[in-house]
Amino acid sequence: MKLLVINPNISTSVSELIRSESERCLLPGTEVDVITAPFGVAYIETRAEALIGGFAAMQLAAEHYADYDGVVIAAFGDPGLEAIREMLPCPVIGMTEAALASASLYGGRCSIIAISNRIKSWYRETAEQHGFGQRLASIRSLSDPLADIGRVQEDQGARLLALAQDAIDKDGADCLIMAGAPLAGLARSLADQIPVPVLDGVSCAVRQAQMQVLAGSQTRSAGSYAPPPEKGHQGLTPALAALIGRAC
Amino acid sequence: MKLLVINPNISTSVSELIRSESERCLLPGTEVDVITAPFGVAYIETRAEALIGGFAAMQLAAEHYADYDGVVIAAFGDPGLEAIREMLPCPVIGMTEAALASASLYGGRCSIIAISNRIKSWYRETAEQHGFGQRLASIRSLSDPLADIGRVQEDQGARLLALAQDAIDKDGADCLIMAGAPLAGLARSLADQIPVPVLDGVSCAVRQAQMQVLAGSQTRSAGSYAPPPEKGHQGLTPALAALIGRAC
Amino acid sequence: MKLLVINPNISTSVSELIRSESERCLLPGTEVDVITAPFGVAYIETRAEALIGGFAAMQLAAEHYADYDGVVIAAFGDPGLEAIREMLPCPVIGMTEAALASASLYGGRCSIIAISNRIKSWYRETAEQHGFGQRLASIRSLSDPLADIGRVQEDQGARLLALAQDAIDKDGADCLIMAGAPLAGLARSLADQIPVPVLDGVSCAVRQAQMQVLAGSQTRSAGSYAPPPEKGHQGLTPALAALIGRAC
Amino acid sequence: MKLLVINPNISTSVSELIRSESERCLLPGTEVDVITAPFGVAYIETRAEALIGGFAAMQLAAEHYADYDGVVIAAFGDPGLEAIREMLPCPVIGMTEAALASASLYGGRCSIIAISNRIKSWYRETAEQHGFGQRLASIRSLSDPLADIGRVQEDQGARLLALAQDAIDKDGADCLIMAGAPLAGLARSLADQIPVPVLDGVSCAVRQAQMQVLAGSQTRSAGSYAPPPEKGHQGLTPALAALIGRAC
Amino acid sequence: MKLLVINPNISTSVSELIRSESERCLLPGTEVDVITAPFGVAYIETRAEALIGGFAAMQLAAEHYADYDGVVIAAFGDPGLEAIREMLPCPVIGMTEAALASASLYGGRCSIIAISNRIKSWYRETAEQHGFGQRLASIRSLSDPLADIGRVQEDQGARLLALAQDAIDKDGADCLIMAGAPLAGLARSLADQIPVPVLDGVSCAVRQAQMQVLAGSQTRSAGSYAPPPEKGHQGLTPALAALIGRAC
Amino acid sequence: MKLLVINPNISTSVSELIRSESERCLLPGTEVDVITAPFGVAYIETRAEALIGGFAAMQLAAEHYADYDGVVIAAFGDPGLEAIREMLPCPVIGMTEAALASASLYGGRCSIIAISNRIKSWYRETAEQHGFGQRLASIRSLSDPLADIGRVQEDQGARLLALAQDAIDKDGADCLIMAGAPLAGLARSLADQIPVPVLDGVSCAVRQAQMQVLAGSQTRSAGSYAPPPEKGHQGLTPALAALIGRAC
Repeated sequence: MKLLVINPNISTSVSELIRSESERCLLPGTEVDVITAPFGVAYIETRAEALIGGFAAMQLAAEHYADYDGVVIAAFGDPGLEAIREMLPCPVIGMTEAALASASLYGGRCSIIAISNRIKSWYRETAEQHGFGQRLASIRSLSDPLADIGRVQEDQGARLLALAQDAIDKDGADCLIMAGAPLAGLARSLADQIPVPVLDGVSCAVRQAQMQVLAGSQTRSAGSYAPPPEKGHQGLTPALAALIGRAC
Repeated sequence: MKLLVINPNISTSVSELIRSESERCLLPGTEVDVITAPFGVAYIETRAEALIGGFAAMQLAAEHYADYDGVVIAAFGDPGLEAIREMLPCPVIGMTEAALASASLYGGRCSIIAISNRIKSWYRETAEQHGFGQRLASIRSLSDPLADIGRVQEDQGARLLALAQDAIDKDGADCLIMAGAPLAGLARSLADQIPVPVLDGVSCAVRQAQMQVLAGSQTRSAGSYAPPPEKGHQGLTPALAALIGRAC
Repeated sequence: MKLLVINPNISTSVSELIRSESERCLLPGTEVDVITAPFGVAYIETRAEALIGGFAAMQLAAEHYADYDGVVIAAFGDPGLEAIREMLPCPVIGMTEAALASASLYGGRCSIIAISNRIKSWYRETAEQHGFGQRLASIRSLSDPLADIGRVQEDQGARLLALAQDAIDKDGADCLIMAGAPLAGLARSLADQIPVPVLDGVSCAVRQAQMQVLAGSQTRSAGSYAPPPEKGHQGLTPALAALIGRAC
Repeated sequence: MKLLVINPNISTSVSELIRSESERCLLPGTEVDVITAPFGVAYIETRAEALIGGFAAMQLAAEHYADYDGVVIAAFGDPGLEAIREMLPCPVIGMTEAALASASLYGGRCSIIAISNRIKSWYRETAEQHGFGQRLASIRSLSDPLADIGRVQEDQGARLLALAQDAIDKDGADCLIMAGAPLAGLARSLADQIPVPVLDGVSCAVRQAQMQVLAGSQTRSAGSYAPPPEKGHQGLTPALAALIGRAC
Repeated sequence: MKLLVINPNISTSVSELIRSESERCLLPGTEVDVITAPFGVAYIETRAEALIGGFAAMQLAAEHYADYDGVVIAAFGDPGLEAIREMLPCPVIGMTEAALASASLYGGRCSIIAISNRIKSWYRETAEQHGFGQRLASIRSLSDPLADIGRVQEDQGARLLALAQDAIDKDGADCLIMAGAPLAGLARSLADQIPVPVLDGVSCAVRQAQMQVLAGSQTRSAGSYAPPPEKGHQGLTPALAALIGRAC
Repeated sequence: MKLLVINPNISTSVSELIRSESERCLLPGTEVDVITAPFGVAYIETRAEALIGGFAAMQLAAEHYADYDGVVIAAFGDPGLEAIREMLPCPVIGMTEAALASASLYGGRCSIIAISNRIKSWYRETAEQHGFGQRLASIRSLSDPLADIGRVQEDQGARLLALAQDAIDKDGADCLIMAGAPLAGLARSLADQIPVPVLDGVSCAVRQAQMQVLAGSQTRSAGSYAPPPEKGHQGLTPALAALIGRAC
């Protein structure tokens, strides 16, 4: 099985974090490639940045999906996820939905630990759109500006741990999600210091993607993820145009 | 006052429908320009097509907003709306949210009449994301493929009227929304034959945009629509780059 | 266009605040009359006071509506709104619903700033009944008794500003509503000191009422706002009796 | 114990139905008086008629409550209920809330059987405002105009039974509520022919009122049902004025 | 009328509290027996303990119900309630649902005061499953370990009173529920010191059970509480086996 | 890795279906044991039967868990799940929650296809309790009594396929879940004839359990799944007693 992991942002340092964490989650026989958006921003905090990252991911997905069994969109907040899922014939998994679905299987309610105040609204909206609002205890975040997106874990480790403890003690979290690709791997290193299960979006997404591939090929010739009627288009990359125009 | 109305699709015939309906809704002293997406699809039915249209609209908005007092995103389903709103310093209004907010002021629950079966999931998700799920009685739609997107009203008038009557009789709608830019103006022509108020997304959006402009300039230096922290970016159009990088 | 604005309370000082703010929101050619309830209380804080004010407004509306194109119920909490809307053939708009619908078009979530602790339950219930619970970040209020209902803005300006800032910082409000007719005009005077859009119930209601009038006459011969079957009645004012007994 | 049951409508024939059913539900030592609104409509189907009935009930309640241990508002839809509850120092119970609360103790979901199509919107809104939306399976109703409000049970018995069966078979109701004072007593006479528990609003309200009286006097000097701050008023009946102006 | 009250726990000291409070709530002619689980835990704080208590209560109910007109499950959190209700032909009432339904008839929102931090998740889940989430203001609890389950009221009275006041002042509770059989009777003794109505699960359940018995026998031959199709079984107590296998 | 799969029912023919489907879902190196409840019913359709099955599963889990890395509760409706999860230190997964969480990663909404009308209420309540109500399009079921629980798939294959098609066409399902252990494996055999992804509870649970085991050991020394305070108990099996009394 081959997985394509798409970083919708331009930060290759974050792509390296994603790659490391992804590789720790592979089943025997699975390979993974991580690719980085050719245009966009360093990391996504806002709805505007998410639209840019989503479109970049969509173009990458159209270009490369054919060589893979499944695709992971590796930014928390799932930019472009539903659009790309609808477009491709293979499994497409997002970090937020995978983390929330995985967290639901630990029972109770979970909290999300995030890297900036600004990012919280987008995360909350995403969780609610996925239908997980009832299971979400809270979202807590760092409040200082990030000095280096590739070094958040080292720079802010103690503060992230304190946020985790507050989510448990004050918000009643039974489970935590360390959100955002820049935190990839942090759940693993902090697990010993946190008294509830702590999940990582990248590893959840890579594991759930493998599971969905293993579940076998699934037709989508009906429902709202079936190919839409063909229609006129212009100005799209050839790969994207081919998918928009594919027959049902 | 000058309004910019963006058609996120490539159909100039639909842009003409939008322009005609927009002009009927202008207050004295308001001017409107309608522009058409340079890339994308003929009309949006799916989440994938909405992502393409949303990004096209975003680029257009960044390029042109400075000459206008407010912006309207003229596709039902509001592609790119929240991203563009967050990015621009002026009012940005979507057809779906404007129609739902306007409909709420007629009391009770409203139904959406749509142009295709496939489009219903995307509309439902949009209405729920805007928080109007509790006020939505139903979504009903045409089921046959569209022969000509610029002539839906002429080709399917009787069928659309029957859908409207079903929404009232079977779903308990107190108000109707004729959804989708291809239906722009239909509410006006059918109003006499429909026994409840019937709204049009384009006219609602153009009217609400004027109202928000008249309400006066409103700062957004806090909250989740404030400019985000500046961050690294690459490969964006200069206009988009300027907005991503603007200081708080 | 002529609008009738009904103050459901007996405070003529508040009617003057309402008139001043209303006049600032008129489109060219619109005239407005403000009338004051002949019986009731000085200002509405409770469900009991709202029922009194609602019935007073209903009698005034029945008596005077025929000379107007639209009616505004000018007390936050919308006393009698749905009843009066159902009864009259013209647009009827409430301050709370208009403010919440207008706020929804700024995106994100809004908070309501209110004049007393006691009033919060009634406001929360109203917002939820209108279906806006999902978009409401919080309701914050003054806690001291009001010395003079016509001078709340002058007496409590600094405290109201502090409440606004708390709603933004602690509750995540992206937009604020200054609630209650006694605060009419405050949004305008505080806008420069508040870093998110700030709305006023009176101006939202007067603007939305004009918009609904401009949208053109809309039949209501079906649905739950159609005239009900005629039925026996007694003891009503002639104007009210005429509306209860009108044919479908 | 003495209970006051207020019919918010002018129909003395319905008051007799209410009295008969009430008397069947009295505990040893309880007495009941039924009084009829001096003004208003024959029966309530709409939000407008509910406002009239609510205000009539409020005036009656203020005038007479002092001689009673508890008050029942005997129209389904609970006109004026929350206002009257807030105003009086004794238990005040509505038919809809009492029926829904009682139904909840049979488990599962309940359906409401109503006397007219038009009345359904008001009932649905009432059930949702009381927070019982999750437990409501459906509302089904007669569709023909009522010939005689005092003889609905005799005239439409077979049709009401068919509606009950549909609610069970098609909507999954585990329990039924025969709604509206004109149906008072019907649940009792149909119980043998309906395969799930069937409740009556009058009997539920009279029973719950007695229970709340038996639970003992309960202070309300805090919270949103405490007496509000005294405030200026004019034009109220002396009894109403005394309650609006009472000290905390 | 004879009621069976089942304590799903093994604490006979708590059974005595339940018995005392139950007896204070009996109508003339009602008798009550309280029985104690033969196996299980001292008091229920967790979902695991609730499953044990629920099964113990089910076996007791099957063994003894035939001699009674109604059954009360006397542990807050309602262990086994829906299962036992479905199994028996007579009324079965739980403490939590009875308290929440009774509280709803005081208007507004209620808070639950609980005996331990750990118990809060189970209570919240129970309230939400019963559909009362919208009416729940908060759950507040003691945080210290309990020295003696039969003496919580004496040991922690002042702390419980402070929790009650916080629920009113900070969470906006209009009504309180003293939760858990170990607090049976506390509402009665604290009522004078608490400025809103305060309810007790045992008394609410015993009163509602009597009311449901008085409402008369109600068939359940359809819906989801009807006897299920007979099916194979093994290893059940004879009493339980007889109920599982009873004909529709 | 070793998994324990517990059939909470007494049907060994169903245990064989569970075993077959489980074995098809094992990762390299995983072993599975399937055990059958020593007491209970042939299959679970009701809340009462679910309580019996839940307690049987709990005793089995306590007795055997120590030899396994994770536990699966193999009856749709998840009898005893939250209790057993709370009690054991290892991953515990239910069929319903695993199927719903897995289905959520296909996007849109899913429908459940069930084996009897009666079972639908229990399934709906379970889905809502897990927080997946917003993602559930419908539950459709067979309506005839089952002749042989071990041969439902053979006996009712065509009817189940028709239900699946109705869920897609009429309810808007984007994904299907074949619910109930008696349908284990059916999703696999029908996948070719169904135009949307179709999932099986057993395979989802077995796959998600393996994934959670692979995610590594996760402490639960805080939150609502931590070991509760030790407390008195009696009459429990030694294995269960040991878990109830374990130190935090």
